[in-house]
Amino acid sequence: MATSGSVPITPVLKDELDIVIPTIRNLDFLEMWRPFFQPYHLIIVQDGDPTRTINVPEGFDYELYNRNDINRILGPKASCISFKDSACRCFGYMVSKKKYIYTIDDDCFVAKDPSGKDINALEQHIKNLLSPSTPFFFNTLYDPYREGADFVRGYPFSLREGAKTAVSHGLWLNIPDYDAPTQMVKPLERNTRYVDAVMTVPKGTLFPMCGMNLAFDRELIGPAMYFGLMGDGQPIGRYDDMWAGWCMKVICDHLSLGVKTGLPYIWHSKASNPFVNLKKEYNGIFWQEEIIPFFQAATLSKDHDTVQKCYIELAKQVKEKLGKIDGYFVKLADAMVTWIEAWDELNPSSASATTATTATNGPAKK
Amino acid sequence: MATSGSVPITPVLKDELDIVIPTIRNLDFLEMWRPFFQPYHLIIVQDGDPTRTINVPEGFDYELYNRNDINRILGPKASCISFKDSACRCFGYMVSKKKYIYTIDDDCFVAKDPSGKDINALEQHIKNLLSPSTPFFFNTLYDPYREGADFVRGYPFSLREGAKTAVSHGLWLNIPDYDAPTQMVKPLERNTRYVDAVMTVPKGTLFPMCGMNLAFDRELIGPAMYFGLMGDGQPIGRYDDMWAGWCMKVICDHLSLGVKTGLPYIWHSKASNPFVNLKKEYNGIFWQEEIIPFFQAATLSKDHDTVQKCYIELAKQVKEKLGKIDGYFVKLADAMVTWIEAWDELNPSSASATTATTATNGPAKK
Repeated sequence: MATSGSVPITPVLKDELDIVIPTIRNLDFLEMWRPFFQPYHLIIVQDGDPTRTINVPEGFDYELYNRNDINRILGPKASCISFKDSACRCFGYMVSKKKYIYTIDDDCFVAKDPSGKDINALEQHIKNLLSPSTPFFFNTLYDPYREGADFVRGYPFSLREGAKTAVSHGLWLNIPDYDAPTQMVKPLERNTRYVDAVMTVPKGTLFPMCGMNLAFDRELIGPAMYFGLMGDGQPIGRYDDMWAGWCMKVICDHLSLGVKTGLPYIWHSKASNPFVNLKKEYNGIFWQEEIIPFFQAATLSKDHDTVQKCYIELAKQVKEKLGKIDGYFVKLADAMVTWIEAWDELNPSSASATTATTATNGPAKK
Repeated sequence: MATSGSVPITPVLKDELDIVIPTIRNLDFLEMWRPFFQPYHLIIVQDGDPTRTINVPEGFDYELYNRNDINRILGPKASCISFKDSACRCFGYMVSKKKYIYTIDDDCFVAKDPSGKDINALEQHIKNLLSPSTPFFFNTLYDPYREGADFVRGYPFSLREGAKTAVSHGLWLNIPDYDAPTQMVKPLERNTRYVDAVMTVPKGTLFPMCGMNLAFDRELIGPAMYFGLMGDGQPIGRYDDMWAGWCMKVICDHLSLGVKTGLPYIWHSKASNPFVNLKKEYNGIFWQEEIIPFFQAATLSKDHDTVQKCYIELAKQVKEKLGKIDGYFVKLADAMVTWIEAWDELNPSSASATTATTATNGPAKK
């Protein structure tokens, strides 16, 4: 498919993509990314103390939101945005006006490919998003749209058009994205293996989505990219991206959208404290044993034909089924509905299709 | 999991693995494999004219079966073994007395890894088979049991034990395994990308299994590895391994067994003639559009608790549902039952659990 499905050599999308960065510190890490990020607009979501000044290196085009801004813009709906947790990044997805989002953590640096060349992570994400996915059947030679590759013998011809790609999940060299128990058991493990592949996560298969190095098509899947209630005042942390990943994947599967994982790598510079992490993850480690079967079994109907409708329906099922595990999930389900209301308020054009749904759910929330 | 799930550095299984090679010519290609294959026993299935003598390089321990041998050993049941098609290789699986099978085509040579080192394909397959699979949830850092890797954050702890691995599907450098139309469109395409990964094909996902470089656990899945009716007297060819792959995957999913794909690579030396291939594949290209949805929807019940019972049930469903496409599938379904009867005859110990089933199905075949 290199002929018909190929992607321009220098994808830019300069005016169609925002880079969203959640942070509590000065953004010196951007210096290293300057050659790749400077042409793009940044949305910085400042976490924690809003009186603190965050320094952004000169020459970058950015807007910055702190907690006061979030409260001012969303009013009472600001309750759905987490505080003192990088989950606050999803506020940036909501205020963006662009078609594509790339989000990266401020401890992620530029990685090198095996030839020693700096990896332009953003360019690879854009390639991933602009070429189709193959969620309906597995291709053993990985991405069939990549130059030098194709569909192998036995791949049904009717499926070779693929599906639109909604999400591109990139990986990490150096510090792998391990949970606290694994960090504790293997404090010195580093990821040194560069796997030169991009693949589609098959339909019906859930995966652990990490928010560290992630790109997505806001128009296709944006409203599903809610990072939940984490951090300050919540009984759980470090499951923000996982939550978004589970919800997003169920909805992508329902709407026949594709999700890719693999390239590009970033260099994850430092491991977070496993003891602090264990405290944050503690409940999640138990809860995920029930959450994952819940999402594996979740079903949506033909009427759920937009991301918003799907998401509101998922919120309903979360309340009904996961609410039994802990009251937290009742609160989370309400926040999911608030998130969609806030999204539609800030993105009226994308909301039109879902007005009916939110109206139906509206009264219950008054 | 490198600690608990690691695999011995030099896996041998010398007395537990047979190498099955279907061929119509002298096996000079074995010279190149001598350092890796010589300790193992070979089962050579000679295709085509049984009067022809196949030369096997000196020093290899082998048994060779030609068509006369197959007819003598199986009697009337020999009808289930294809003639003039490499699908005949599955006879070798049936007569083997070992736990593991590796099968390779005689146009496959030793490939080199990116450092220039010869790849011991068999050793990698054995590693793949001896370590668990992860069919129930996707791990973004690929095989979590490999040294230097593990399960990532968000991977449920209850699933980290994995599943037994039944099949290891290896890949090909140089000539990719393309169908005739793709060969025709891209005659010069070569696979040069070495992807340093082994992954589990998730539960519920079908994939195109190629028989060129394939290993499996005979005890776990052997009876599902029937390569169908292809070649001489049949309306289809080059779908033998695909057929086995679809049946096998449905059964592995049902029995919670794992299937891996990725490393090791072999060097596939020459492309077969795309015009000849088109003639063989022609019907398959149409039929697979219905066969794949059939297998995606196929269900097995709790009573189907052995590979043989599952396979007999699949044969029944093939006859009922695919028989409508073409009479060929009625014949194939009967051959599937014959295959299981022949398997159980030659492997009485594995048959005990399924005697009842074959007996139940027996009368209908009289």
